[in-house]
Amino acid sequence: MHAIMTTDPFPKQHAVTVESHGKRWSVGGIAKGSGMIEPRMATMLGFLTTDVKISPAVLGRALRRVADETFNAITVDGECSTNDCVFVLASGKSGVEIARDDDPAFLEAMRAVAGHLSREIVRGGEGATKLVTVHVTGAASHGDAWLAARTIANSPLVKTAIHGGDPNWGRLIAAAGRSGARFVLDHASVRIGTVALFVNGVPFDERADDAATVLQGKEMTVAVDLGTGGAHEATMWTCDFSAEYVKINAEYRT
Amino acid sequence: MHAIMTTDPFPKQHAVTVESHGKRWSVGGIAKGSGMIEPRMATMLGFLTTDVKISPAVLGRALRRVADETFNAITVDGECSTNDCVFVLASGKSGVEIARDDDPAFLEAMRAVAGHLSREIVRGGEGATKLVTVHVTGAASHGDAWLAARTIANSPLVKTAIHGGDPNWGRLIAAAGRSGARFVLDHASVRIGTVALFVNGVPFDERADDAATVLQGKEMTVAVDLGTGGAHEATMWTCDFSAEYVKINAEYRT
Repeated sequence: MHAIMTTDPFPKQHAVTVESHGKRWSVGGIAKGSGMIEPRMATMLGFLTTDVKISPAVLGRALRRVADETFNAITVDGECSTNDCVFVLASGKSGVEIARDDDPAFLEAMRAVAGHLSREIVRGGEGATKLVTVHVTGAASHGDAWLAARTIANSPLVKTAIHGGDPNWGRLIAAAGRSGARFVLDHASVRIGTVALFVNGVPFDERADDAATVLQGKEMTVAVDLGTGGAHEATMWTCDFSAEYVKINAEYRT
Repeated sequence: MHAIMTTDPFPKQHAVTVESHGKRWSVGGIAKGSGMIEPRMATMLGFLTTDVKISPAVLGRALRRVADETFNAITVDGECSTNDCVFVLASGKSGVEIARDDDPAFLEAMRAVAGHLSREIVRGGEGATKLVTVHVTGAASHGDAWLAARTIANSPLVKTAIHGGDPNWGRLIAAAGRSGARFVLDHASVRIGTVALFVNGVPFDERADDAATVLQGKEMTVAVDLGTGGAHEATMWTCDFSAEYVKINAEYRT
């Protein structure tokens, strides 16, 4: 891994080494991405490797679990391409055997590598200047949590507000509200970083300056609780939306 | 109507007068819009008036039919607001009685007014420089036709390509293909204006210059046939996506 030459300002490579069963084993990976990135992978190539001993069927199922929370949980522009894929190769050389696709240590290592690569893809997205973690809680169902997270993560108004450094809880609430997910305004909340801007339906606009400071950074979390009291949640990664994105894609010619 | 003073560069007012049953009657309307415009009406106010004699229930149903093909068929940025509405008022003064919500002449007059207002809203959308009619044909179902049209009309890559004057059939095909609507590439086609750029799965790149000329205009149609052989179709109106949109929404403060 260390010999890879790259001119990518966001080099998408990562590896973790784990000790278990008295042995050391690793998961590594490289990826390629840029624009046209949507949760369904888009113009993206990912290659993961590991030296655990694992059957192709179990490895495939483990990859699917991990991809749903990583490569399928990122968006740059809500677009999706046709030449996207993630491969995983296992050599078995460590001698550590993984028998189940829900093996916690293996999933954790895979998730660490795939998650890192996914976030680097977003950080290097077309025109992106910020990496934004969108965290939705309080959803009535798994589907609702992802629907709200995806709607927020792809909302042009949310993404331009973050680009402009505007702690605009209204746009976050509006995106969650229009997503189609069950939403209870009187119990809904919005946080930017650790700043609770909107709690149980009540705005705290006196905290706007603190939230604006959070948005000055290169990396931040925006959290929306849908207020249904449900325990479902979802985490996605997106970037801000800049005039540079329009420039790149308006000037690009096939 | 003619006395309305406006500083709006896209004055959203329109009226039609019809002769039927030996009498004259009219439908008129005014609207307000800008950004945050999605098919579910968004930050938009519409007011229609007519002098036909019609019951509130029939008028309400007729308005719903018309709104689905007009106010609900436009998008500027895929966003949706909460303070959107369309009113219709009927005075009955013409003496012309409309008994059914599918009265062809009445629907046509309503559609003409509502359609005109809807297109003016898009033309005056934030950062918009072009009015784009998205026409989807060959869909396997009504839902598929609208799903594909909506996906194309909200695609950042389609909207930036049109802004840049790039006759990029690939982005149109990709948006239709990822929409979730049934799609048969080998029979799919793309037209920009009257220029058939892609026919039954085969690109005609030698026609790209002609298509680019169409995109130089202020108003154009992009048509995608999904290739399923189905008879369902949908028409939506959208605008191009400019750096100005980002500027307006990144600098805007609540």
